[in-house]
Order: sequence, then structure tokens, then C-alpha cells
Amino acid sequence: MKDSNNNRISIPLPTIRRYPDYLRAIRAMIDRGEKRVSSVILSEELGLDPVLTRKDLAMAGVAGRPRLGYPAVELAEAIDRALGWDSMTDAVLIGAGSLGHALLGYKGFLGHGLRIVAAFDNSPNLIGTLVHGIEIQSLDAIPEFVCKLNVKIGILTVPDTAAQSCADILVSAGVKGIWNFATARLEVPKTVKVVNVDLAQSLAVLSHQIVR
Amino acid sequence: MKDSNNNRISIPLPTIRRYPDYLRAIRAMIDRGEKRVSSVILSEELGLDPVLTRKDLAMAGVAGRPRLGYPAVELAEAIDRALGWDSMTDAVLIGAGSLGHALLGYKGFLGHGLRIVAAFDNSPNLIGTLVHGIEIQSLDAIPEFVCKLNVKIGILTVPDTAAQSCADILVSAGVKGIWNFATARLEVPKTVKVVNVDLAQSLAVLSHQIVR
Repeated sequence: MKDSNNNRISIPLPTIRRYPDYLRAIRAMIDRGEKRVSSVILSEELGLDPVLTRKDLAMAGVAGRPRLGYPAVELAEAIDRALGWDSMTDAVLIGAGSLGHALLGYKGFLGHGLRIVAAFDNSPNLIGTLVHGIEIQSLDAIPEFVCKLNVKIGILTVPDTAAQSCADILVSAGVKGIWNFATARLEVPKTVKVVNVDLAQSLAVLSHQIVR
Repeated sequence: MKDSNNNRISIPLPTIRRYPDYLRAIRAMIDRGEKRVSSVILSEELGLDPVLTRKDLAMAGVAGRPRLGYPAVELAEAIDRALGWDSMTDAVLIGAGSLGHALLGYKGFLGHGLRIVAAFDNSPNLIGTLVHGIEIQSLDAIPEFVCKLNVKIGILTVPDTAAQSCADILVSAGVKGIWNFATARLEVPKTVKVVNVDLAQSLAVLSHQIVR
């Protein structure tokens, strides 16, 4: 969404977090042949407050019309754009252990605008091997690679003890964001965004609820 | 934590989400030879409000003493118990694709009280094969296995389209919680807890912030 001066308007994070769910539901409607989307039906399908849904959709910058709703394809494209999923962002992955392997093999990220273009590890046993068609390179090769290809995102699937030093390498090399699967909390400059995927935290919530 | 009638007191989810971080920090202190933990130092290390940290630790049921702080080992054990990580909970995994493979190979869950005891898939190519020492079984085998071994947790690493039907199988078989890695939202009875690990949502937050 842009304001009258053509600057991007910042969309709140809770809205951004709901966008993938909206997108999935809208695409399912498009697949069923629907041309228009009603925010009320969409909110019911996702179990959300209709007022909240209308606000969320308005942030994407597509106008809904009373009774007619939103043009489905246009709305999906607008959300895609807001998420930055309309164009591919290149990423490198550090840590080609079991989780790294899985992420390298997961094609679903392409649909979310993320393309993993290289992978790095410090294990001599892994360096030079191919994982899902990507050659594992030595950590030494990171700075030149990231800089030359202007890679924006680093994915960290290393053990906790290596997370900060690998994050430092990525930051020096110039990435703008780190997707951190290690449980260690990273210290990075404010200009670099970190999003943590903390499986231990998620498991904590589940096991605590079951134990009770 | 238990009340005067020996009933477990419910700990709020935000506290539970912070517990793994506390635990990691306290264990590092114990490794450094420290016998007592100060809530102020702990809160500083994790970047939290000291009042919040004191409340969080109180919920675990261990008393801190002015100036002396908390007994380190006792505190770690109490948090472990609150999380249900002091004893092993058995889990089964459905969906032995790339993410399923990775989770089967990840030994870190054992430290969080989770033991994956069986894995299931509907692909004839996978059934009967061994993945990290666990034999992949047919989906048909789920009900008997879960019931006989009284398995409490089901892990879903299946495609979105299969998520609900696999959740239904798990619920009928008697699991109490589902750790859902599919992006589909599951409908389950209120007695069954679902925790979603939504990588698309996490990626949405990161790519939106970088695109801006």
C-alpha cells in the first residue's frame, strides 16, 4: 500500500502474520471459480472478526465494494505484493545438518518468493557434496557469494553454539534478514531483521498443555 | 506449581513460552559453576523486565531469597517439570517427507522430553523403509499403535491437503496434542491441543520487513 506521496505504508505485523492464511483461502476460492471475495465469508472461514478482516484487506490497498466484495485475483496479487512474495528473494542457508537438508529439499518456499541459491557448512564431510542439487560450500565462501549475488536473506540451521558467529558472517556479508532456526538469541545491528523459528518454545507450549 | 489442595496451578502461556529461554540461561550458569541464580541478572541476560522475570520464576514454585537469589539446580528442575520436560512423552509422526525426515533425525527433542517412537506415511515407496532407525509404517497402523502405547502427541508433517484427515485419525486414536507443521488450520475437539508451526507465516514477517 502506498500513500499520496507514493511511499509504502507500513502494515502492522499482526496483519502480515494473517496474510498467508487469507491468501490460502482466497486462492482456494479462485480455484473453485469464484471471481469475487466477501470479507465476511473470508472472516468466517478463518474464524476472525469481520471488522478485523476488512481492515486487514484494506491495508493491502484493494478497495472492496458493498455487496460485491473484492475482486479475487486482484486481492490475492495485492497481498502477495505486500508480503514481498510477488518477486523472488534469494537466500543462502548455513548449516547443512538434518534440518538444513529438509529446508533445502522443501519446494514450498518458492511459492512464498524464497529461493535458496547456496548452502554452506564447516564440515569437511559435507563440503563439496550435493544436497537436493545444491553444492555445499565452505563457510569461507560466504562473504564473496552473498556480496556478488546481492543475497538478502540468510537462513541459519546451525547448532546454538555456532549461531552468533555465523550470524556475524552473514551480517558482514550484507544480508538484510536472518531466518534463525537455532534457539540462540542473535545480536545484530538494528538494520538487520531477525525472525526466530523456535521449535523448543513451540514444543514447550504443547507439552505443558498436555501434562496439565 | 500446586495450590494448597495439591492441584496444579495453570501457568500462563506467555510465561511458558519464556521458560525454554530461562532454562537455557540457567543451565549455562550451572555449567559455569554457579550455585545460585539472580532474577535480575537472568532478566538482563534475556532482555526482559526484572519484575516479569521474578513473576515467571515464582510460577515455577521455587522461592527466591533476597540477595541470595534462587538455588540454580532446583530452579532448572522446577522449570523442566512445569514444561513437562522432566519425563519423556512419546510421539508419533505422520508424513515422512523432507521435513518429517529432518524431525526424525533431530535428537534435540529428547532434551525437551519428546521421543518420536513411530512414523507413518501413505507412500508405498516409503512404507517399510528405515529413517534414522525408525521404520515407516502405513497409516492404517496408526490407531492400534497409538492406543496400545498410549501415545500422547502426534506430529503432522504432511501436505496441507492431507492435514485434516490425518488429524482426524490421530484424534480418533486418542492423542492429546498435535504439533502441526502443515499450514492448514485443523478442526479438533476442545480436549485436544494443537500447536501450529507455520513456516509460511514466519517467512511472511521476514520477507515483508526486508521488502519494505
